Amino acid sequence: MSAKSRGISGERDLIHKFWAEGWASLRVAGSGSSQYPSPDVLASNNVRKLAIEAKITTATSKNFPKEEIESLRFFAEKFGAEPWIAIRFYREPWKFYTLEDLHATPGGFSVRQEDKDKGLSFEELIA
Amino acid sequence: MSAKSRGISGERDLIHKFWAEGWASLRVAGSGSSQYPSPDVLASNNVRKLAIEAKITTATSKNFPKEEIESLRFFAEKFGAEPWIAIRFYREPWKFYTLEDLHATPGGFSVRQEDKDKGLSFEELIA
Repeated sequence: MSAKSRGISGERDLIHKFWAEGWASLRVAGSGSSQYPSPDVLASNNVRKLAIEAKITTATSKNFPKEEIESLRFFAEKFGAEPWIAIRFYREPWKFYTLEDLHATPGGFSVRQEDKDKGLSFEELIA
Repeated sequence: MSAKSRGISGERDLIHKFWAEGWASLRVAGSGSSQYPSPDVLASNNVRKLAIEAKITTATSKNFPKEEIESLRFFAEKFGAEPWIAIRFYREPWKFYTLEDLHATPGGFSVRQEDKDKGLSFEELIA
């Protein structure tokens, strides 16, 4: 499976989880290539709206260029949504991070697998 | 150009218009084939959120199965968005219709080109 199709498969997995819990959710078309800021996934239960950048990785940390995070923050503000980073490390369940949970790096931000306990589980996210 | 690529091109055109006016906007991935209710386009200026079913046609009317409209209404309620139908008839600008503006048919709803004055222009929509 290519990195792109693994990414799409991961986004679909998230969407199924949201609908199964009664939330509406969708994948954004061309989210990685669009000229405009956009998250990978949007979800809403009418009260809350979540704008999610979703990544699957087999590495032990995931880096985010500063622009990707700023773009997520900008989009979320325009949409009245909460910005979240979702990461599924190898053989781990999804974990959800606020932008404040990210680890600053010279080029942007990262989430390390060793910090996984800082993230929320799916159940905690939607609670 | 296939009907599908004409549809995508139409959706992109709408998205450009929204961003040009300072709104955030996105195309929904797989909106025509997803197993879940979803519109073609979402747009927000933070205050308002619009869930839009967007169609381009060379015919003089456009039909919508009842399920498509119900699905748009359901999604919009879940997302706290206003449901809108956008249609671009041949050589006409985009017109935007509320669900109440649709003409009931035995199988669902339709918008006829002759009723185009019932629709809002893009400028009126975002005013």
